[in-house]
Amino acid sequence: MEIEKKESAESGKMEKIISLCKRRGFVYPGSEIYGGLSGAWDYGPLGLTLKNNIKNLWWNRFVEERDDMYGIDAAILMNAKVWEASGHVAGFADPLVECKNCRKKFRADHISGGEKEASTQELAKECPECGKFGTLLPESKFNMMFKTNIGPVEDKSSVSYLRPETAQGMFVNFKNVMDSFHPRLPFGLAQIGKAFRNEISPRDFLFRAREFEQMEIEYFVREGDWEKHFESFRMEILEWLAGVGLDKDSVHELEVPAEDRAHYSKRTIDFEFDYPFGRKELLGLAYRTDFDLSAHINKSGADLSYYDEEKKERFTPHCIEPSFGLDRTILAILCEAYTEDEMGGEKRIFLKFKPSVAPVKVAVFPLLKNKPELVKKAEEIFRELKKEIRPIVFDDNGNIGKRYRRQDEIGTPYCVTADFDTLENDTVTVRDRDTGKQERVKTDELVNILREDIYGKE
Amino acid sequence: MEIEKKESAESGKMEKIISLCKRRGFVYPGSEIYGGLSGAWDYGPLGLTLKNNIKNLWWNRFVEERDDMYGIDAAILMNAKVWEASGHVAGFADPLVECKNCRKKFRADHISGGEKEASTQELAKECPECGKFGTLLPESKFNMMFKTNIGPVEDKSSVSYLRPETAQGMFVNFKNVMDSFHPRLPFGLAQIGKAFRNEISPRDFLFRAREFEQMEIEYFVREGDWEKHFESFRMEILEWLAGVGLDKDSVHELEVPAEDRAHYSKRTIDFEFDYPFGRKELLGLAYRTDFDLSAHINKSGADLSYYDEEKKERFTPHCIEPSFGLDRTILAILCEAYTEDEMGGEKRIFLKFKPSVAPVKVAVFPLLKNKPELVKKAEEIFRELKKEIRPIVFDDNGNIGKRYRRQDEIGTPYCVTADFDTLENDTVTVRDRDTGKQERVKTDELVNILREDIYGKE
Repeated sequence: MEIEKKESAESGKMEKIISLCKRRGFVYPGSEIYGGLSGAWDYGPLGLTLKNNIKNLWWNRFVEERDDMYGIDAAILMNAKVWEASGHVAGFADPLVECKNCRKKFRADHISGGEKEASTQELAKECPECGKFGTLLPESKFNMMFKTNIGPVEDKSSVSYLRPETAQGMFVNFKNVMDSFHPRLPFGLAQIGKAFRNEISPRDFLFRAREFEQMEIEYFVREGDWEKHFESFRMEILEWLAGVGLDKDSVHELEVPAEDRAHYSKRTIDFEFDYPFGRKELLGLAYRTDFDLSAHINKSGADLSYYDEEKKERFTPHCIEPSFGLDRTILAILCEAYTEDEMGGEKRIFLKFKPSVAPVKVAVFPLLKNKPELVKKAEEIFRELKKEIRPIVFDDNGNIGKRYRRQDEIGTPYCVTADFDTLENDTVTVRDRDTGKQERVKTDELVNILREDIYGKE
Repeated sequence: MEIEKKESAESGKMEKIISLCKRRGFVYPGSEIYGGLSGAWDYGPLGLTLKNNIKNLWWNRFVEERDDMYGIDAAILMNAKVWEASGHVAGFADPLVECKNCRKKFRADHISGGEKEASTQELAKECPECGKFGTLLPESKFNMMFKTNIGPVEDKSSVSYLRPETAQGMFVNFKNVMDSFHPRLPFGLAQIGKAFRNEISPRDFLFRAREFEQMEIEYFVREGDWEKHFESFRMEILEWLAGVGLDKDSVHELEVPAEDRAHYSKRTIDFEFDYPFGRKELLGLAYRTDFDLSAHINKSGADLSYYDEEKKERFTPHCIEPSFGLDRTILAILCEAYTEDEMGGEKRIFLKFKPSVAPVKVAVFPLLKNKPELVKKAEEIFRELKKEIRPIVFDDNGNIGKRYRRQDEIGTPYCVTADFDTLENDTVTVRDRDTGKQERVKTDELVNILREDIYGKE
């Protein structure tokens, strides 16, 4: 009973977050006015800014601040041979089960609600759609790549796919980057971009969508060095997650046992997060050996080897892959930030974003809307701040308490209010989102104080 | 004869740019190790940074600096009804001509080389592929949307498309943004994102690709105000293009005559650029009336009206659409920047990027590679600068003249060299890319000087 209650509270939390996301402009259901499109989500103004903040924090840390990373932005449409070489055409499939009564299709390992492997015997159960017993057909394999035809001829020769991962865009550009930049090992290629998987049953909001974004690195090393670099990425990942506000108690490292790893991987860690719907994979760190480059050498005939000038040896580098789900990261940050508490005797909801992550950094208010001199002063302060700090909003709608609550709900860390004292001594109040405490500061020190609070902290 | 010579010089220029882009890591052919994929291009490290710079300059100007713009990031996969309402399912087609001899397919209006409308009579000519005469079949219509199936059932009911434009992602979210933010007219939705068009014959490098990025705004106004806002966007566009380095002599406004406009548009200006392959559309500015919102009201039944609280009226807003091709902008900037001149008696190639656009802002060199104290000093300077200015590169490979040439070729505006004087009086030389002139500055003033030169200018 205790567990059930907790589960329902947690699923209640998820519903509240989805509702807040829609109401306040973080995330909308895709194509909503047409009844939506399952597994597609549209980012609204605040969600887009939040997403861009996460992307920038990732790119800064894993690409720009380093000297050994090369950014790539490969096309979503690739030559179909890429997916033959990578194994996706043959093997990127989920187990599919169809009900012979209602013709509805399900992902076999989702049928009992959990993520357990479903054996054929287990399918002798009722259909989740029509409720009939024993109507589920034996499972088949369903390839999750979205298929399309390139060019005006619609036949087998023109078939290609929407990429199901960004990783291959880096492997196929390995040689190009080598030729342009002559990097020395170890070095990495990095990419942020969309990927598509035709999920049988998309679910859990942004968690399992058909269209999503990845932030991936393929880091090339000498075989003998892999453990050192693997460990170093492990630490970097943990630090970065803490930096964007994911509490270390909510993030768990799962050492994937050999029998569950891809056959070419010698070590994989899944970093899992405690989502309201369970502990699930947020990102993965895998040592992929030289599997990918070797597969492309075999299939394409291209020379993807590395020549060590000093040691006079030529070999195929090995690869370590940190692979982040961007939307899963955003969802984790939203879940971690979502807080209900009481302030001034009233319940409130607020998003406890780190200032570096928050989509709106500062809100500026006049204490009263109907005092033109206050409004004018607040607008001046808003204009000044906007030159340096963005995004920033101006709000004179409703009473000040309501405005604070509105900003709390979207996670704005600081609210600046111009009141009657402002007109007399050029000071304003700065309210802290988490404590609700107000501090009075001089207007001409405001930019510096806020800038340090927002961009100094991470 | 004169014209032919000019055309060949210009097509020579295009080949040089494509070659430079590949060699130096701006743009690679997509899936190149598998023979490529026509119409798909991969951005390499420098091209990606260039692209991100353009995106940021656009977003800053048209979204962040304003108070009336709402950013959106809608999914590429949308409900198929969106494309029925927008008219794309019925009418987004190019004229297709097939040769009955060799079975090759061509875009009819590309057949004679020019972009002229091809009538059936004109097709009584030779096939561009096999050279036979009179084998071209009458033209048919080819829908340019890439088709795919969403979900495990592959039939008509599951068909959808990769979006052929980002615009519809904004129209279908009009109501969501209204509900979340309650903006007052005029206001706009803005989006940067990928779009896909199954071009019959992709060509001209990044100009006509099958996968590309758009930067679009749908700006909603009262019907009576459209001319004012249209004119204001026209000016903003011209200023922004100049800001990213497109000379006003290379940009031309084409007032699209009524017979060439979409039936719902009351005014359209094509902004054309003098590409090496001809004067072609870079971006468009269109007054689309209330066509799009009305079409979605009719098809979806959703209420996409606007209520004016003060005047107590309800109506469907009209829309002005500035629509930028991001890849076309990048290509224009590359073409405009590409320069051949002579320096120190030697021919050189350089990219005359504005500092704000340049993918590498500064390069730091030790004068000589084999003097450890010079290398150490240069590395220190590099580390210091990298905290404030990015991307920045360090290079100690080859002689200093070659290093300058390498940076010229990728458009790095400033090269900083640590020489023997640096060790004595803590000064370095700063070389200007365009003039080749060197100026000696104090190391501790270097960051401020460069920062102003790079971020102060636009």
